Amino acid sequence: MARSIGRICKGFQRLGLLSKQTQLIPFTRVPVGTVRTIVTLPSFLFPQPRDFSLPNPSWGSEMTRMYEHYESQCEMETEGGQKGPWRRLPSYNRLLKYATGGVYLSKMIQSKARLFTRNIRNPGAAFEYVLFVNKEEQKCVCILQAGHLLEGPPGHVHGGAIATMIDTVTGTHATFLSGPVMTANLNINYRRPIPLGSTVLLESCLEKKEGRKTFITCRVTSTDGSKLHTETSALFLSITASHLLGG
Amino acid sequence: MARSIGRICKGFQRLGLLSKQTQLIPFTRVPVGTVRTIVTLPSFLFPQPRDFSLPNPSWGSEMTRMYEHYESQCEMETEGGQKGPWRRLPSYNRLLKYATGGVYLSKMIQSKARLFTRNIRNPGAAFEYVLFVNKEEQKCVCILQAGHLLEGPPGHVHGGAIATMIDTVTGTHATFLSGPVMTANLNINYRRPIPLGSTVLLESCLEKKEGRKTFITCRVTSTDGSKLHTETSALFLSITASHLLGG
Repeated sequence: MARSIGRICKGFQRLGLLSKQTQLIPFTRVPVGTVRTIVTLPSFLFPQPRDFSLPNPSWGSEMTRMYEHYESQCEMETEGGQKGPWRRLPSYNRLLKYATGGVYLSKMIQSKARLFTRNIRNPGAAFEYVLFVNKEEQKCVCILQAGHLLEGPPGHVHGGAIATMIDTVTGTHATFLSGPVMTANLNINYRRPIPLGSTVLLESCLEKKEGRKTFITCRVTSTDGSKLHTETSALFLSITASHLLGG
Repeated sequence: MARSIGRICKGFQRLGLLSKQTQLIPFTRVPVGTVRTIVTLPSFLFPQPRDFSLPNPSWGSEMTRMYEHYESQCEMETEGGQKGPWRRLPSYNRLLKYATGGVYLSKMIQSKARLFTRNIRNPGAAFEYVLFVNKEEQKCVCILQAGHLLEGPPGHVHGGAIATMIDTVTGTHATFLSGPVMTANLNINYRRPIPLGSTVLLESCLEKKEGRKTFITCRVTSTDGSKLHTETSALFLSITASHLLGG
């Protein structure tokens, strides 16, 4: 199988459909400093992945209302030439766009790995969320509709599901501010449980940056801000290729 | 529908198949101090739920080996009459065993809610775990095999999935020690990422109890203890019926 794919790649190269780059692959078990040859496959082989941050029929009225609120303030050319301060982030999808020879490609194809927050494809059943960033204010907000498969205490969202969204939002925000990072600390204070099915707002703010460290705070509230569900301080460490490849 | 179920319940009561108890229902939106009449349905209507903490074919050799290690030290009568210090906890299942009149039962039947850590039924795809408690040493251990649907950084477990298991294990331990509790704080230090598919050990220890507060520490390590993945301190608050019903 691996050899066959290797041969297919060589065939594409001959036809001029593949480009070659030299690049480091994060999170693979290769010695530090190893450089691999990357083959980028032609885009027609892989259709554009679905953007899960766009509205779907499972979204309730509150989720839709909040989405439209931030979407209306997003970057766009207006008559006066001004732009809004917010920008919607498309959902993260693990793309099959790198391959190191036939063997690595084969492993990637065989892999069933899926992002934890998007591992249930039934719309509305688990995490329905969308992120917006505000570059000027160094803020990030996430609108979350918590589905029925996220239960902890009966009728309420699991503390781990809340932590998962906090890690996702603050981690995305830290990456936006500082480049590649890894979570070093999450300190979460749970103030009030979140009823299953409800829509809440996660607001992430930059506290400070010190060398490799990015400090973020995050509050989870009701969409009108009247109820505080959790408060978090998070620390992220910037990482380099050597950190990634060191394992 | 609600009325029909109410009538069915009354029918069962007349036949002597239902017992009546007066009990408080946690996490329902009723005024503080309200007492409701609970109807317990006959067990033949609901077959014994599956115990997800028992071995299944998706378990790898390391998961199985660790399970057998703790299982062999569990409470059991020996020739000398001694018992082991550990006890396996069966998996938590949300049972449909309480109903308040027809309306509440109807809501429960319609509800699709599922425990976050058990919401994917495909064995081995997400969280495979089993908990053991040691009453003498006031310890709890959890053996976790992290499936391919828990991905965060490519090839590694999502920080939120790790937090989810920490909340589950420390919360179960705190409940075992102090009765009904709610998570008040989780302070998680991430030291080393966990590769997808690997088996790790979560060890939860009682630090101290002060009034309503139960302080727990938790370490996530490789099964031989040589690699430290995360360190956590957790705080749980004991809750009473009024806390539960207060929402």
